[in-house]
Amino acid sequence: MNGPSLALRQRSLGDPSAEFPLFPPLTRGCPRTSTDEIAYPLEITYDYARVDPRLFEQEPGTDLARWSPLLPPLEAPTLGEGGTPLVEFDGIYVKDESRNPTWSHKDRLNRVTVSAAVASGAPGVVVASSGNHGASAAAYAARAGLPAIVLTSADSPPAVQAFARAYGAKVVSVPAEARWPLLREVVDRLGYHPVSNQTVTHTGHPFGPEGYKTIAYELFLQLGGVPAAVFTPTGYAELLYGMWKGFVELRLLGLTEAVPRMFSCETAAGGPHARALATGAPAAIVELAASDAYGIAGQVGGHRGVVAVRDSGGEALLVTDEELRAAQRDLARQGLWQELSGAAGLAGHRKLRRDFDGPVVCVATSSGFKDVGVGVERFPVLENPTLDDLAPDA
Amino acid sequence: MNGPSLALRQRSLGDPSAEFPLFPPLTRGCPRTSTDEIAYPLEITYDYARVDPRLFEQEPGTDLARWSPLLPPLEAPTLGEGGTPLVEFDGIYVKDESRNPTWSHKDRLNRVTVSAAVASGAPGVVVASSGNHGASAAAYAARAGLPAIVLTSADSPPAVQAFARAYGAKVVSVPAEARWPLLREVVDRLGYHPVSNQTVTHTGHPFGPEGYKTIAYELFLQLGGVPAAVFTPTGYAELLYGMWKGFVELRLLGLTEAVPRMFSCETAAGGPHARALATGAPAAIVELAASDAYGIAGQVGGHRGVVAVRDSGGEALLVTDEELRAAQRDLARQGLWQELSGAAGLAGHRKLRRDFDGPVVCVATSSGFKDVGVGVERFPVLENPTLDDLAPDA
Repeated sequence: MNGPSLALRQRSLGDPSAEFPLFPPLTRGCPRTSTDEIAYPLEITYDYARVDPRLFEQEPGTDLARWSPLLPPLEAPTLGEGGTPLVEFDGIYVKDESRNPTWSHKDRLNRVTVSAAVASGAPGVVVASSGNHGASAAAYAARAGLPAIVLTSADSPPAVQAFARAYGAKVVSVPAEARWPLLREVVDRLGYHPVSNQTVTHTGHPFGPEGYKTIAYELFLQLGGVPAAVFTPTGYAELLYGMWKGFVELRLLGLTEAVPRMFSCETAAGGPHARALATGAPAAIVELAASDAYGIAGQVGGHRGVVAVRDSGGEALLVTDEELRAAQRDLARQGLWQELSGAAGLAGHRKLRRDFDGPVVCVATSSGFKDVGVGVERFPVLENPTLDDLAPDA
Repeated sequence: MNGPSLALRQRSLGDPSAEFPLFPPLTRGCPRTSTDEIAYPLEITYDYARVDPRLFEQEPGTDLARWSPLLPPLEAPTLGEGGTPLVEFDGIYVKDESRNPTWSHKDRLNRVTVSAAVASGAPGVVVASSGNHGASAAAYAARAGLPAIVLTSADSPPAVQAFARAYGAKVVSVPAEARWPLLREVVDRLGYHPVSNQTVTHTGHPFGPEGYKTIAYELFLQLGGVPAAVFTPTGYAELLYGMWKGFVELRLLGLTEAVPRMFSCETAAGGPHARALATGAPAAIVELAASDAYGIAGQVGGHRGVVAVRDSGGEALLVTDEELRAAQRDLARQGLWQELSGAAGLAGHRKLRRDFDGPVVCVATSSGFKDVGVGVERFPVLENPTLDDLAPDA
């Protein structure tokens, strides 16, 4: 049923004829199709003919190894990632990725990227990230017995700074302009395996987004079919693309005819994927205004997001911080406390105000503990409290 | 397979002949067997003859409703609690309860206690708690559409103070001596349903610990049999007792002959269950020294912990903050970042240094984000970082 990886090769998203052996992972984008302006990501191809269809007769539980034929080799040990619940919410469904080992969706990506590091025989893992990705990579590197270096920035929320440092990685806050040059040095001189982006438009690690396909597989099992639409917080669109690819594979394997429309939900402060889709560009870089949704607010987009939205017949949505806060509050009022970025899927769905002929899923990516301001605000003590002090807030 | 609750009655842990109807939940301990010194908790009895044994042929997934025959009526909606992974660690197994909706084991308890509030027709829920219990109750109350009042204290970690307030409950920090009188007032005058303790020795909500039986059921399925020993962080011992009861039920239902030894792991700063077991008392109250394991450090114990340790042939262990920090660090160095209290199970197991003839499980109760100091500490920025700055820490 499950079993060894059926991964075959790396293939450029810029040109399907541009293929490369599975190893070494090409962590600086496709060397053949990339240009000075556009770096093309790679994906992984599989020997789909050898997939046992009973693979999809299992319960959608934890540990990505249950999907091993459709993932790159999982050489790094599990932390029991995935198998997250689908929670009914206001007529739609919320896929709560805060239930993962480091309480965000990134764990699905890093089970796969750190596996690549182990399989490559790398002496360590290096990542530039101010939030979830860095901490998640640190956790999986620790679990795999590999040292890790995390390059982060000073404006990470304080609780998240403790988080990144909890797993024993070497964590250093450096100025933004120092991060990518330092990352390249660690890769080139120490030989550490990079699991974050190194290119002009986003490419990241070629294996990583494969981990997100497992969300699609779980949704298919949890819903008894594919959803009609999926709304997801979108930064670099690895999550959006990975899920899209998972649904495409289910169709390729004959398990579904329909596939969902994929909706990217970016901050209005940036929105590189919305820009690329609007201008017909393969990827874009935009100006970035202020936003508290630091987990997804970025200047740099990549080609993956364009592919997923375009090929699925979806749309690129932009949400303001105010719209994010409203969605965040509504989720929390139903017992689901999400980081601000994590509410972007629901915020996008609400902004669109469209009905769909089938289930709608909003992915909620990350625990509210990662939010800006958590741990900073102080609350007063009521010295002589009475019952009147306990009346509900207006 | 699953189906309606088979819950029958409330029964005193002090005297099995002292039985009461299932409703109303007796939230101030057993009125018949309790004395001024010892308040006896109640448990719930079930019509075990009507349990379909195929109940235990399912996958151990999320939503406690999959166990509904063996739980009190689940009138409050789910947040996809339970179904947490069992992670291999250093020759033993860690049951990671940080994967729950509010990232601690308390969600299993509060699915059940808030269900009691709903079934009782209460206009709201009230809880006195400085940490996980309060936030979890707030989340489930919000999910059920009930207002909630959370009485907390000023010395909650700052991130946890944000956490408790995230779900829309009315959260008020009050001096310690004001909490229980205020809680009683809310119960008596507003009619809110109390989900935390109101008695001299701990009794809490009679239905709540039933939720923890589901951990035993999951372990049974995940291990293909019961463990030989279970070590768990112990505060009021609702978790310890609930798991013990779950194993006892598996034996009663003919699914196992053996049951595990249960080990309570309390802070050396307090240790009321260790005291009660050492002195042969039904429950105890102790002096409390300083401890950072605020989630379990307390003066007040209850009879449940005594029953679980004594009847299972286990032991009461005490762990110092130093031993807790060592266990916490070792868990985090394997990618599992736990609150200090959450590491008590592993710390207890290590302190005992005993081999067992079968699997050993350490329950890890709560995400490291809830730890003391998270969000408070600030980290410096390296202005001109070089590769030498990235050498591993000594």
